[in-house]
Amino acid sequence: MAVAREAMSRLVRDIPDFPEPGIVFKDIMPLLADHDGFHAVVTALAESGRDEHGEVIVDKVIGMEARGFLVGAPVALALGAGFTPVRKAGKLPGPTHAVTYDLEYGTATLEMHQDAIEPGDRVLLVDDVLATGGTARATAELVSRCGGTVVGVAVLMELGFLSGREQLGDLPVDSLAVV
Amino acid sequence: MAVAREAMSRLVRDIPDFPEPGIVFKDIMPLLADHDGFHAVVTALAESGRDEHGEVIVDKVIGMEARGFLVGAPVALALGAGFTPVRKAGKLPGPTHAVTYDLEYGTATLEMHQDAIEPGDRVLLVDDVLATGGTARATAELVSRCGGTVVGVAVLMELGFLSGREQLGDLPVDSLAVV
Repeated sequence: MAVAREAMSRLVRDIPDFPEPGIVFKDIMPLLADHDGFHAVVTALAESGRDEHGEVIVDKVIGMEARGFLVGAPVALALGAGFTPVRKAGKLPGPTHAVTYDLEYGTATLEMHQDAIEPGDRVLLVDDVLATGGTARATAELVSRCGGTVVGVAVLMELGFLSGREQLGDLPVDSLAVV
Repeated sequence: MAVAREAMSRLVRDIPDFPEPGIVFKDIMPLLADHDGFHAVVTALAESGRDEHGEVIVDKVIGMEARGFLVGAPVALALGAGFTPVRKAGKLPGPTHAVTYDLEYGTATLEMHQDAIEPGDRVLLVDDVLATGGTARATAELVSRCGGTVVGVAVLMELGFLSGREQLGDLPVDSLAVV
C-alpha cells in the first residue's frame, strides 16, 4: 500500500485547464506507463476485494468506461474474479439496464448488460477517480437491478472537495489518494 | 494457446444487427466475465510480446479505446511493460499527436500523448478486434511520430473477410481467432 501511494504521488500529473478552464485534471497515464507503479496500484486496489484474512470476497469486478477499464480489468484478474464493464449509452450490444445520473461536468446515461451480474453476486466497483459519486451510485443501482450486492468501491483518487463518498451511503470507499 | 482458443469459441457471442442492421457483432463480455477465460486470452496475447526464448521484447503496450483497454492493460502487466492508451479525439489531457483514419463504420481521429512513447521504444499494439486495419495503421503512425517501433499487433479476433492485415504491410499480426 505504501508503494502504491508513493507511485501515485510521483506519477500522477496535474494538467491545468482540462477539460475546461479552471479545472486541474489528474492524469494517470504516466502511472500506467510505469510498470512497477501500475502493478503496485492494481495490487493495492485488489485489497478492497479481500477480507481481513486475505480471502477474496467478490465474484465480479466492474470497471466504469473508460479509465475504469484500465484499472478494473487488471484488478479482476488479480482477484480471480470475472470482469464486467459499465458503459456509456449505446455501446453495449446486448439487452441492458440503464440509469441516467449527474456527473461532474454534466449528465450521462450508463448501461450494463442485464446478464452481466447474477443474483447474489458480490461486486467491487473500480474506477480511476471518485468525483461527485454519481457514477458509482448509478452503477450500484445497476448492480442492484440485477440482484447483485456491491461490497465496495475502490478508486485511485478521491476528489475530497466534491464529497463523493457522502453520496454512497454505507458503501465502503477505498482510495489510494485524496486530492 | 489451445485453452485461449477454446475460451474464445465458447465465450464470445454473436449479437445480430449491432451496431446496425446486417452487422453481426462479436461480444467479448462473456469472455471477460469468466476469470479463467479472460486469464487465458491475456496470457496468449502476451506471447506476442516475447521472442522464441520467452524473453520480453517490448517496452510498451498500447491499447486502443475502449475495448482495447480491457485486454491491453492486463497484457502490459503480464509482460512487465508500461501501458499507454490511444484515445479518440479530445480525451487525452496533455499534448498529443493525432491521426484521422478510416474505420469499419466511418472515420475517426485517434490521439496519443506525445510523451507516451520514447524514441527507441519497442511497442506491441493490443485490441479486441482487427477489422479493416485502419485503427492499427493509424496507431502505428502515431508510434512512428514518437520515434518508436511497432513490433507487432495482437488481437483476440480478426475479421478475415475485411483483410485488415493487408493494410499493415510487414507488421506481424497475431489473432486468437479468425471469424
